[in-house]
Amino acid sequence: MSTPGSTSFPIYLDNAASTPMLDEVITEMLPYFKEHYGNPSSLHRFGRVTMRAIENARAQVSSLIGSKQHEIIFTSGGTEANNLAIKGIAELVRKTNPEKNCIITSAIEHESILEAFSDLEKKGFEVSYLSVTREAQIETSALKRAIIDDRTALVSVMYSNNEVGTIQPIRELATITHQKGGLFHTDAVQAVGKMTIDVKHLEVDLLSVSAHKINGPKGVGALYRREGLNLAAIIHGGGQESNLRSGTENVQGIVGFGKACQVAAQRLVTYETEVQALRNYMIDRIVHEIPNSRLNCFAQQRIPNIAHFTFLGVNGEDLIIKLDELGIAASTGSACSLRHQKPSHVLKAMGFSYAELTGSLRLSIGILNTKEEIDHAVSVLSKAVDELRKFSPFELVSNKQN
Amino acid sequence: MSTPGSTSFPIYLDNAASTPMLDEVITEMLPYFKEHYGNPSSLHRFGRVTMRAIENARAQVSSLIGSKQHEIIFTSGGTEANNLAIKGIAELVRKTNPEKNCIITSAIEHESILEAFSDLEKKGFEVSYLSVTREAQIETSALKRAIIDDRTALVSVMYSNNEVGTIQPIRELATITHQKGGLFHTDAVQAVGKMTIDVKHLEVDLLSVSAHKINGPKGVGALYRREGLNLAAIIHGGGQESNLRSGTENVQGIVGFGKACQVAAQRLVTYETEVQALRNYMIDRIVHEIPNSRLNCFAQQRIPNIAHFTFLGVNGEDLIIKLDELGIAASTGSACSLRHQKPSHVLKAMGFSYAELTGSLRLSIGILNTKEEIDHAVSVLSKAVDELRKFSPFELVSNKQN
Repeated sequence: MSTPGSTSFPIYLDNAASTPMLDEVITEMLPYFKEHYGNPSSLHRFGRVTMRAIENARAQVSSLIGSKQHEIIFTSGGTEANNLAIKGIAELVRKTNPEKNCIITSAIEHESILEAFSDLEKKGFEVSYLSVTREAQIETSALKRAIIDDRTALVSVMYSNNEVGTIQPIRELATITHQKGGLFHTDAVQAVGKMTIDVKHLEVDLLSVSAHKINGPKGVGALYRREGLNLAAIIHGGGQESNLRSGTENVQGIVGFGKACQVAAQRLVTYETEVQALRNYMIDRIVHEIPNSRLNCFAQQRIPNIAHFTFLGVNGEDLIIKLDELGIAASTGSACSLRHQKPSHVLKAMGFSYAELTGSLRLSIGILNTKEEIDHAVSVLSKAVDELRKFSPFELVSNKQN
Repeated sequence: MSTPGSTSFPIYLDNAASTPMLDEVITEMLPYFKEHYGNPSSLHRFGRVTMRAIENARAQVSSLIGSKQHEIIFTSGGTEANNLAIKGIAELVRKTNPEKNCIITSAIEHESILEAFSDLEKKGFEVSYLSVTREAQIETSALKRAIIDDRTALVSVMYSNNEVGTIQPIRELATITHQKGGLFHTDAVQAVGKMTIDVKHLEVDLLSVSAHKINGPKGVGALYRREGLNLAAIIHGGGQESNLRSGTENVQGIVGFGKACQVAAQRLVTYETEVQALRNYMIDRIVHEIPNSRLNCFAQQRIPNIAHFTFLGVNGEDLIIKLDELGIAASTGSACSLRHQKPSHVLKAMGFSYAELTGSLRLSIGILNTKEEIDHAVSVLSKAVDELRKFSPFELVSNKQN
């Protein structure tokens, strides 16, 4: 039996930040490195082969989310898909109907949404941010209050939160938006491939996907754009992707993305049950075995792979570093916001106190994680929390209480 | 000896459109697929490994073009780099000095430049297009005439043309631009890795590079941005790439790009001499052995790998298709403009007549091409041109003249 820290391989519990590529994804990509390397725009056989590969991947992606093939626009990732959706709509609306200059999002979106909205705010758009409940839930009533007239061009609400996992009532929010003549976008980067997502059922106009969150390659994503919906490009050039995303296509990346979607579609049911079971097992052990630990989100609808905790009296970043030393890869929250070294805007919106904010830890399970890894990780975590508390004022208080 | 069409493998002479990845590039990338898959923004070891890999690649790219490491911004390719440079400057200037609303480019740029300029023109910028000589040369006098006062925000001129290969006097054009208080960008996608490019010698403010043109992966490129130069982002989010290009980095692509730059730097001298020798050998054979064939660009300064021909009496697209059937991959011009099926704007700007426009063929050599391939390709080309002329009115005229 291994003791904490003695493991020869680190255990990766940060699958919400990124995931390893699957062997079948890599195998699918390799021929496009030095065998099929034509520019998809070329007329000759090298070009035709790569163009066919892109269309095959487009079918695989569309199949996973229930869209038509031509409703998929490949991008360089989820961030670009989000930017394209938001700025693409805003730019068109500004041109055709300048009075429709209200845009709405939530307070707990990913940075790529919040920063795109902030950019549009600087350019004269009126932005509203929907608040959330203690469980990071966006209530339909909040949107109804915000969307007072027909001046709303776009509402963008994430499918599931990347820090705590809460799933939003997307279909209901889209309906409310449509009733007021607005368009609806959802950032589904953390949800696609982890649960059944059907864009036609959801009745969303735009939906963002990322490959590297579902064991595909980094640097590729897609935007679902409902058939017939006008959109302005943000990157101009050779007219690739129906003139909505110019630039020579990332062929090998797109092929890998397609395969990752195909695999995700095949394993969708088992993913939800198995990963969720493992996640819940981990939650149970942590909250029962580590004193003063708390699960931070009890929302009924949560994605299966994320669990977010607070260990009172521990600094979250110290904990990440300690865990890393002991061979466990975890996160305080979104990887993208780490560079800013500021407290999570998600937890703040959920109403967390400063003490709760600082002691937070996100553990996110992937399809390659095993029960043995979880067992080991919980032991290491328990030890790490214990050690850190020895140097924290909380520990003193806690000891006095005992 | 093989006869035309009997070759078992197609010969690829479209390296200006895209190139195969080198084995050493693939080898460098592979560990970043399933071993080092951390999000570079993550604090743990998985993240540190990929962040280090990105910085190593940044050093390799900067070393190839003589920039400082932190002057390199990774993008999803040359098209995005061009868009970021042009729109990034335009947006900032519009904010800080609204009267500086003139932007200048040339008539022979890549679509990603022309379409970005066209987008800005719709947004109120005054755009001037510099004309070129019969050899696709932009004369410094043309820029001096265009840049009449200090209202010019940006001049963007490509380093070398992607259809005919003409190299522009970038250093001189940049100096003229700076004298009038403007900024200078060059799209060097076709030139970097094929000749010595030193951004400090050129004194450009911005320069675009693409990986897949130099035997690196598709879906990755870079923008050189001179230290201290302000630029607005076009994709917002987590603040990656010094807040100028958000989105989880395409780690494996960036690693491959870096390696491709390192290899290109090592082979720079031999590339120029060997590829140029092979290209010139091909030109000699074609113009001497194929009747009524003509090299289209005799500019003194041309990139070593491109040759552009006209075969009077032959339709260029028919020729591409015929060559493809016979196992030769070639192009009429830019791959990116093929989807539009319109005559080359480059050749039109060079003053080509309709007959000259329609019979054009671009052959572009790569580092993997051999003399045997060139010999075979010339024989096939000769046969193809001959066959197509049998059905063309030109052939009748030509016969009568004999």
